[in-house]
Amino acid sequence: MLTMKRLDLADARLLIEGAARKSQEIGVPMCIAITDESGNLVAFERMDGGKTSSVIVAQDKAYTAAAARKATHDYNKVCVPGNLAFGIHTEVGGRLSTVGGGLPVTVDGEVVGGIGLSSGTPQQDMDCAQAGIDHFMAARG
Amino acid sequence: MLTMKRLDLADARLLIEGAARKSQEIGVPMCIAITDESGNLVAFERMDGGKTSSVIVAQDKAYTAAAARKATHDYNKVCVPGNLAFGIHTEVGGRLSTVGGGLPVTVDGEVVGGIGLSSGTPQQDMDCAQAGIDHFMAARG
Amino acid sequence: MLTMKRLDLADARLLIEGAARKSQEIGVPMCIAITDESGNLVAFERMDGGKTSSVIVAQDKAYTAAAARKATHDYNKVCVPGNLAFGIHTEVGGRLSTVGGGLPVTVDGEVVGGIGLSSGTPQQDMDCAQAGIDHFMAARG
Amino acid sequence: MLTMKRLDLADARLLIEGAARKSQEIGVPMCIAITDESGNLVAFERMDGGKTSSVIVAQDKAYTAAAARKATHDYNKVCVPGNLAFGIHTEVGGRLSTVGGGLPVTVDGEVVGGIGLSSGTPQQDMDCAQAGIDHFMAARG
Repeated sequence: MLTMKRLDLADARLLIEGAARKSQEIGVPMCIAITDESGNLVAFERMDGGKTSSVIVAQDKAYTAAAARKATHDYNKVCVPGNLAFGIHTEVGGRLSTVGGGLPVTVDGEVVGGIGLSSGTPQQDMDCAQAGIDHFMAARG
Repeated sequence: MLTMKRLDLADARLLIEGAARKSQEIGVPMCIAITDESGNLVAFERMDGGKTSSVIVAQDKAYTAAAARKATHDYNKVCVPGNLAFGIHTEVGGRLSTVGGGLPVTVDGEVVGGIGLSSGTPQQDMDCAQAGIDHFMAARG
Repeated sequence: MLTMKRLDLADARLLIEGAARKSQEIGVPMCIAITDESGNLVAFERMDGGKTSSVIVAQDKAYTAAAARKATHDYNKVCVPGNLAFGIHTEVGGRLSTVGGGLPVTVDGEVVGGIGLSSGTPQQDMDCAQAGIDHFMAARG
Repeated sequence: MLTMKRLDLADARLLIEGAARKSQEIGVPMCIAITDESGNLVAFERMDGGKTSSVIVAQDKAYTAAAARKATHDYNKVCVPGNLAFGIHTEVGGRLSTVGGGLPVTVDGEVVGGIGLSSGTPQQDMDCAQAGIDHFMAARG
């Protein structure tokens, strides 16, 4: 039997809170998705003004980061024509995202969930995802 | 030009809050999804212990209630073999839900969103969805 | 943070072994799928002669039993036209199975995975799934 | 009438055994999928620690290698913008994989199945897939 650690809802709200705060700061309303370690949704918020397409994109980024235990921008680096990882972006029905903005949430060296942001530029999405993790980690003390 | 009324994030949080309160009262942790009037997700929470399959089912119920402007239990009543509406449950890739637990959110006679609950029996899901709407309406005063 | 128990590969092999033994006994080669508690595949075997369509059906049954924490034959009972749960069989892209042969694997009161069998009649599938669980439980002592 | 040669379950277990041995050697727990010559799953194992997203990716690689009778890294080479094969990675609902790690299993000049590995780098996945084939061939004598 394996024993897994998984984000609970309180953890997920902290991640969203930190990401939303940064989104407000930069003036870009976001879709924010938090998944558990297997990639299933725990919490989601679309800030007023967030994009409709980002509802799915944010979830796919969070899924990828958690289930593949890799930041989506790291998949982006290797998903280049001619590289052996090219094509990963169409896997799992296209849910495996190579667009910056998805980060695994790691506690004590174990991936316990994922955070995915979408509506801004990939860099803005990445910055807000990181802000979510920073806030969560600070709250854990 | 059309002008649409749509739930904002604060509205969605109220709907979740009311539904979650009822879920706690009956001791059944739920997945709670809130969509806008077009059926796109605004907010979602999986209470600790909510079912993994309900992550999707709750969203489908909320989608159906909003986009088709009909409670999923009303679709259930007419989705009976021999009735002309039979088969509606397989439409939109199976997303059109006929399982009780999805309710349209109506303000001033206009559907502005949907709420979908999943993890309990359909009747429990319906009760909690209604509690979400009641709480939201009370808060609007 | 939540802590989840999950079947490991050795557990999954035991479940398959018990189910396959029963399948041989009744002379019906089966597809046998074992998922973790979230419904993701841990192990799968198609016995020589198992049906090609059952490759997917067995996985869907195991997914349902684990992710919804319910035997597929229990969903079957309530998925009757006119009942509020009717339509559940088309949810999650049709993956939510109401065909007998999927059982949750429960240890110390917690669902830690699912087993799904397919290729025989639903009753045969159910019997073999139960045999898998019995063998697993016996091996745990 | 055609007569097809197809991996049986004992063959599939040998392929998994060889791949798993190599995975343990390099310290990367893998998802290992074996399909028949038509691309339908015969056996699958997720080693403890294998990635959740790789459950699907491994199966897609094995499917591609068998059904298209081509190593996924060979598809990768030609799936380059400007080349006439570009776009193959989005076909069959994205199941046609161009990510290294899927190899056809060929006996007496005939493709009898496929093996797909996922969780490591594409090169690690390829090495472990090859180790599976080597072990299988050695066991055949």
